[in-house]
Amino acid sequence: MKIEIITIGDEILSGDIIDTNKSWLSEQCWKLGFSVSYHTGIRDDEGDIQLALTQAATRSDIILCTGGLGPTADDFTIEIAAKTFGQPRILDESTIQYLEKWYAKRGRVMSENNRKQALVPQGCRVLTNRWGTAPGCQVEFRGKTFFFMPGVPGEMKGIFGESILPFLRTRCEGGLNFASVTLKTFGCPESDLDRKLSDLYEDRLNIQGVRVGFRARMPEVYIKLSAWAETADVAKANVACVRALVESRVGEFVYTDDDRSLAQVLVEAAIQKNKTFAIAESCTGGLIASRITDVPGASQVFLGGVTSYADAVKISILGVDTQTLQQHGAVSEACALEMVRGIYKLTGADFCASITGIAGPSGGSDDKPVGTVFLAYLMNGAESVEKHFFPFRREMFKNIVSSLVLRKFWQACR
Amino acid sequence: MKIEIITIGDEILSGDIIDTNKSWLSEQCWKLGFSVSYHTGIRDDEGDIQLALTQAATRSDIILCTGGLGPTADDFTIEIAAKTFGQPRILDESTIQYLEKWYAKRGRVMSENNRKQALVPQGCRVLTNRWGTAPGCQVEFRGKTFFFMPGVPGEMKGIFGESILPFLRTRCEGGLNFASVTLKTFGCPESDLDRKLSDLYEDRLNIQGVRVGFRARMPEVYIKLSAWAETADVAKANVACVRALVESRVGEFVYTDDDRSLAQVLVEAAIQKNKTFAIAESCTGGLIASRITDVPGASQVFLGGVTSYADAVKISILGVDTQTLQQHGAVSEACALEMVRGIYKLTGADFCASITGIAGPSGGSDDKPVGTVFLAYLMNGAESVEKHFFPFRREMFKNIVSSLVLRKFWQACR
Repeated sequence: MKIEIITIGDEILSGDIIDTNKSWLSEQCWKLGFSVSYHTGIRDDEGDIQLALTQAATRSDIILCTGGLGPTADDFTIEIAAKTFGQPRILDESTIQYLEKWYAKRGRVMSENNRKQALVPQGCRVLTNRWGTAPGCQVEFRGKTFFFMPGVPGEMKGIFGESILPFLRTRCEGGLNFASVTLKTFGCPESDLDRKLSDLYEDRLNIQGVRVGFRARMPEVYIKLSAWAETADVAKANVACVRALVESRVGEFVYTDDDRSLAQVLVEAAIQKNKTFAIAESCTGGLIASRITDVPGASQVFLGGVTSYADAVKISILGVDTQTLQQHGAVSEACALEMVRGIYKLTGADFCASITGIAGPSGGSDDKPVGTVFLAYLMNGAESVEKHFFPFRREMFKNIVSSLVLRKFWQACR
Repeated sequence: MKIEIITIGDEILSGDIIDTNKSWLSEQCWKLGFSVSYHTGIRDDEGDIQLALTQAATRSDIILCTGGLGPTADDFTIEIAAKTFGQPRILDESTIQYLEKWYAKRGRVMSENNRKQALVPQGCRVLTNRWGTAPGCQVEFRGKTFFFMPGVPGEMKGIFGESILPFLRTRCEGGLNFASVTLKTFGCPESDLDRKLSDLYEDRLNIQGVRVGFRARMPEVYIKLSAWAETADVAKANVACVRALVESRVGEFVYTDDDRSLAQVLVEAAIQKNKTFAIAESCTGGLIASRITDVPGASQVFLGGVTSYADAVKISILGVDTQTLQQHGAVSEACALEMVRGIYKLTGADFCASITGIAGPSGGSDDKPVGTVFLAYLMNGAESVEKHFFPFRREMFKNIVSSLVLRKFWQACR
C-alpha cells in the first residue's frame, strides 16, 4: 500500500517554515509498518493543487494532505479538492454548531470567513477538530482515500491521532507484521553510539533482519530498531533481541522507549517515588523550570525555582555571600554550592540543583571560557559539584545543561 | 519559471530526519525572486525516482535534486537519472583525480564503490564538490535543467552556492526585480488580521501588484508583503506603500520587520532605555525567564525571576500572605499583586511582573476554569492587574501568556 503526504502552503514552498508535519506523519506511518512513498509540497495555487491531487490518485492509495484549511482567503484546499473530485460542497451543521460555541466561549464574533471552514465536500467524513477551528475530512476519489488536515501541527496531530490513526490501523490487519522500538538517549554523541553498535548493522546485513537507525535530535539521539517478519511475534522477538544487545552496550544513556520527554519521565518518576525538587538557575535562565512545568502534574513534585541572573539576586534571594562572588566569581564551585544551599533553605525540596555558567557568546575568559558551567546538587542531604564544558551556541548550551540536570534528578528517583 | 525541488532518500520518507534542505533551497530561490512550485520527496527506489524525474520534466523548468549520490549500494540517483534521460554514463577523469587525492590525504584506500561516484551522465556539466566526495551535475532533459546535489547539507550548500546560484542569477537578469518585507505580529488572531486587511488582496487583485500573505507561528502571525516590478526601486516602493496601509490598520500588533524574536526586541529596547526587569512566574513556570535569557546580552537588563510553583514557595520567597492564599486562592488578583510586590522587593527592577493562573489540563473549577490567568505589573511605581482567559493546551497557554508579558515590557520601553 502506497501512502503519499501532500503539504499545501506558500510558507512551505518559500522556505519560510520548515515542514515538520511531513516527518511527523511519516514516522506515525512507519510505526504502523507502512512506508510512505511520496512527499509532495505545493503552493496555495489552484492549478498546482489540482495537479498534485490528480497525480497522487494515480500512484498512491492513501493520501494525507495538510494545510490550507484556515479561514483566510488563501486557504482554499477544500474548495479546490471538491472541484477536482467533482463533488459539491455543503455546510456541515455539526461544525457550524461547534464553531459557534468555540467563538462564543472566547467572546468573539464568528465571521463569514469562519463559516467557510464548515464547508466540506458532500458525502465526506468530517474529522472533528477539537484543537482549533478548521475540521478535517476524509474523501474517496477514484478508489483512493484522501485525508485533509489543518497545517497547524497541534491540530494536525490531534486529528490524525483521533480520526486517521484508527483508520490506518484497520488497514494493517492481515498483511504486515511489523515491530519497532525507539530508544531515546541523552549523553552520548551519535558517532560514539555508531562506533559501539556498528557491528549490528554493518554491510546492511542485520542481525535477525532488524534495521538499526539513528536520528539526531540534538542534544539527544534516538536509536530506532525495526523489523518485518512472518508473524508479529517473530518480529517483536527479533527487535527485543537486538534491543537487548543495544542496551547491554549503551543502556546507561537510554531514558525511555516511548513518546515521553526527559522532563516527563522525570516528573512521573518523582510522583511515583514521592520526591520533590527545586532549582536555582543562572545560565540556563529558567529553562529547566520551564521544561519541567511543560509536564501536566508537575505541580505535585516541582516546588519552584529561582532564576538568579544578576549577582545582586544571587545575594538577595539565594543568600550567596558577597565575598564568595568577589573571591571566586559567580561562575565557580563555591557560588554553585551556596546557590544550591540557598534554594534548599527556601524550599526544603528532596532534590535541589544549582547551575551557574557562561552561555556566551560573550562573557568568557581564558580561565573560564564560554561554555564553562558548574552544577551543584543537594540531594537527600548529600552535596556534590560538577564542572562541565559545552562550547556550543547559547540555546544548545542551555538545552544540554538543562538535560543534564533533568537526567540527574531522574536517576536519583529510580 | 517553475522551480521544483526533489529530495531522494529513505531516511526522509521514514521520518527519521527532518528535511531542512528543502526549506533552505526554497529560501535561496525566494531571495532571487523565484518561487518554488513543487517539493517532491521520494525513497531510494528506482521506479519512484524515474517517475519523479519524468513528472518534474512535464511541469517544471529547473529541477534541484538532492540525495542518493554517496558511495553506498542504495545511492543510485545518478544511475537512474542517466537511464531515465537515455544518457550513457561515463567516468569523469577530473573527479577520479580529485577522489584519489581526497582519499590519499586521509590515508584511506579508494574502493570500487567510491569510483562509482565519478560516473556521470555523458555531456553533463560536472559540479565540483569541495566539501565531500560525490560531485554534483547539471543535465538537460526535454528542454529542462536538472541539478543533482548530495543530500549532506554542508555539501549541498557548498555546491549550490558555487555552481548553481550563479546559473540561477543569470536567469534573473533583465527580468525579475523583487522586494519583500515580513511584519511579525502578536496579539491579533489570523482571522481578525484577515478581516482588517482583506480588501488589500481580495480576489487576488492586489494593490500595486503586492502580494499579502499570512504565516501563523502560533501565537504569532507574520504578514509577508512581496512584489515583482520592472525595477528594484519600483518593487520596493510598492511594498512600502502597502506596508504603510497595513501598519495604519494593525500596526499596534507589529513588533518587528526583521529576524528578531519578541524577546530579542524587548531586550534590545530595554538595553537602549537602560531599564531592568524581573519576573515572578507561577503557571508560566520559568518560560518567560527562559525566553529572555535565550537572547545574548540579556544579563544587562534581566535581573532574575522566581518560579513560585508551590504555594509554600510563594510564601517563603515572595512573601505572599498565607491569609491571602486562604481567602482568595493562588490564582487571584490579590495573590498576583503580592507576588509582584515580592519580586520588586527582592530585585528593585524598573519593570516587574507576576503571573498566576491555571495551565491545565486539570486544576480548574467553575469559578476559575483552566485557562484563567492573572497578570500583575509594577512598573516605575505603578501597579496594575489584568485577568485573561486562554483555554488552550498547556504549552500554548504558557506561550501566549509569556508573549503578553514580553510585549507589555517592550511597550513600556518604547
